[in-house]
Amino acid sequence: MKTTVNIGIIGFGTVGSGVYHLLKNNSDPITRRSGIEIKVKTVCDLDLNRLKNEVTDALVTDKWSDVTGDADIDVIVELIGGSEPAGTIIKESLRKGKNVVTANKKLLAEAGAELLETVVETGNSIGFEAAVGGGIPCILALKKGMVGNHIRSILGILNGTTNYILTKMADEGTTFKDALKDAQNKGFAETDPTFDVEGIDAGHKISLLAMLSYGRSIDFETIPIEGITNISPLDISFAKDMGYIIKLLGIAKLINGRLDIRVHPTMIPGDHPLASVRNEFNSVMFDGDMTGAVVLNGRGAGSLPTASAVVSDIVQLASRNEYPGKFIGKAKLIEPEERVSRYYLRLYTEDSPGILSQISGVLGKHRISIASVIQKEVSDEFVPLIIVTHEANESNMIKCIDEIESFSFVREKVVFIRVEDFKKGEK
Amino acid sequence: MKTTVNIGIIGFGTVGSGVYHLLKNNSDPITRRSGIEIKVKTVCDLDLNRLKNEVTDALVTDKWSDVTGDADIDVIVELIGGSEPAGTIIKESLRKGKNVVTANKKLLAEAGAELLETVVETGNSIGFEAAVGGGIPCILALKKGMVGNHIRSILGILNGTTNYILTKMADEGTTFKDALKDAQNKGFAETDPTFDVEGIDAGHKISLLAMLSYGRSIDFETIPIEGITNISPLDISFAKDMGYIIKLLGIAKLINGRLDIRVHPTMIPGDHPLASVRNEFNSVMFDGDMTGAVVLNGRGAGSLPTASAVVSDIVQLASRNEYPGKFIGKAKLIEPEERVSRYYLRLYTEDSPGILSQISGVLGKHRISIASVIQKEVSDEFVPLIIVTHEANESNMIKCIDEIESFSFVREKVVFIRVEDFKKGEK
Repeated sequence: MKTTVNIGIIGFGTVGSGVYHLLKNNSDPITRRSGIEIKVKTVCDLDLNRLKNEVTDALVTDKWSDVTGDADIDVIVELIGGSEPAGTIIKESLRKGKNVVTANKKLLAEAGAELLETVVETGNSIGFEAAVGGGIPCILALKKGMVGNHIRSILGILNGTTNYILTKMADEGTTFKDALKDAQNKGFAETDPTFDVEGIDAGHKISLLAMLSYGRSIDFETIPIEGITNISPLDISFAKDMGYIIKLLGIAKLINGRLDIRVHPTMIPGDHPLASVRNEFNSVMFDGDMTGAVVLNGRGAGSLPTASAVVSDIVQLASRNEYPGKFIGKAKLIEPEERVSRYYLRLYTEDSPGILSQISGVLGKHRISIASVIQKEVSDEFVPLIIVTHEANESNMIKCIDEIESFSFVREKVVFIRVEDFKKGEK
Repeated sequence: MKTTVNIGIIGFGTVGSGVYHLLKNNSDPITRRSGIEIKVKTVCDLDLNRLKNEVTDALVTDKWSDVTGDADIDVIVELIGGSEPAGTIIKESLRKGKNVVTANKKLLAEAGAELLETVVETGNSIGFEAAVGGGIPCILALKKGMVGNHIRSILGILNGTTNYILTKMADEGTTFKDALKDAQNKGFAETDPTFDVEGIDAGHKISLLAMLSYGRSIDFETIPIEGITNISPLDISFAKDMGYIIKLLGIAKLINGRLDIRVHPTMIPGDHPLASVRNEFNSVMFDGDMTGAVVLNGRGAGSLPTASAVVSDIVQLASRNEYPGKFIGKAKLIEPEERVSRYYLRLYTEDSPGILSQISGVLGKHRISIASVIQKEVSDEFVPLIIVTHEANESNMIKCIDEIESFSFVREKVVFIRVEDFKKGEK
């Protein structure tokens, strides 16, 4: 029960090459979870030399009609962006009986109604998970996960560049100009940042989410959009004093049958689910009448996260049945001695000299190194001693605890709690 | 192009009645988004009297075989919970050619391998979004949204009762016992809380997520599970001193082909995406090799959130094609005078008496009431004045700003930023 789906990729830029490489490296989990094998038949880009160097097992061309006109291809992946020829490519593909996947938020937001008409007319489908929120499956969550809800409101941090700049301004008190320069240096902002900092990109995305939620097309030009160029460090700091944080939000609500949609800098309280979304991360909060607030966050851009969204769409367009997933067999659990963590230890010891050296000696013997120690002053003959370790094997840790508990100066059992850090690389 | 799907609901408790009422009230958005009309043909429960009172437009029965044996029914929704007869009902339904939707995490975690065999054998499907994370579409995100990823790790706050208790302990320094009592009074904990506080419920859920991520079945009894009964306020407070917070996490990682899966209280740093998940809320973080960390959060339990997940599964099982969604027409945007928000205003005024009264006079005239005022001391002849208003119409606000700017004692333009609060009811 394995289905092969042939795809053609048009546009081999950041996202296009990401899709190509993802499909090469991760075909195993895709087939196991979906029953589908995705075969890249043709890749199209104007830079034919690059294609010849990087694409090793698919046809290459610089004419998109070679792809849309190929009867063997089931799904067209449009990743060139911009209005034209992207619009023509998508409509042509739909008319030729193909499903389309695209990340083209500009086109969808500005000419989406027309494209959707072609979709309905031809009976084919279009997937655009990659157009909003990069690797965050927010369109899926909205369209399918929350299919049973009236959506009361959508609030989103939909642009990584502006969120990076606002985070920088809030953390360091820098001006917009300096934070923008920093974002440009780190690759989080374009040389011409207008599109991002003026809120247009966020506008495209909230427009798409609102169209899906409310089943109505939206004239993009009528959406009130305000960027972050006028935000001053002063307002960020006053906001902080009051327990608020400033974020660029896309907002959409349906009020008495009318759509309240807008993009602007917004103050939200520090305990708002969107307040803790920092740096280049994106987040969307859908308030469903059945679910209440559902929040998704993650990387809103980048080659591989966006490729992940494209592949999700391809699989869904190619699936005819709910596939239960293939099971490899029974999981082998890790052995306790392989289990690694950082640990927090709390023990009560007598308040006398030399004790810490004996305890750290035990840890050292088992090659467990100490990250930090806190000894609290308590008016008691026994004092709590807190030790946080670097990564260590759990079986070694348990041996240490046994030894430590056997010291006569240690009272009660040692409390131990595992520590799980959030590695920056995983962000 | 509308498909009708007949369903039978077995079990009319909290979730079952939630599903029934959701389908009654929200059939419009379901059909618009999915092209599917869901018809409840039969509802089964041992409490036939309750059914007769509450179920007005479906057949009622107290024999589940009336439902599983009905050739007209396409999808069986099993919501009685527990091992038996739930297991038999599910297997029988699958063998009769029906798809199944269930919220039965205990059964799936403890006998899931056997059920999945029946699924594969019969070629039918089973949906269990409602078994993990209530209204949060986390299984959908994992199975479909992240289909192109190897999942490096899963970390989840998967049990609302324990998260409520730990939040209470952290906020108020109370003991586990007192926090549990409070949770019981508020309906967030059962009279016998063992299942939750000992981590078993979280264990069922992390087991299901790990099975899906890694395609391997798991012997539930072999998972190391530790609850929160031994957590002391002291450790919570020491953790806080070091910038950490204690959460009950379900953790699963694949390490060299072996599964590291466990449930235990865990210290995570304050800026960890799971650290800000408070009270009865649930959250899951999937770390995909393509997407990086994707985090979902929302209400992990309750009648309507869980019903939302059940309905999402029904729609997916009934869908044969990607449905583009039906468009109602063009959105009417709200008029600016209908737009309502709270506002932050910053203005520079001369540092002289009577000014605040004149400004608040303007606001009062336009029926805008002030929530808070901050006047910062600055060694300058002009001082910043910050005003945060209660909800007001934007057009009134703009009129006020015009009037305020025309005062001779006001320097520069008035900065205004909209404030969006997180209403408790939306949480």
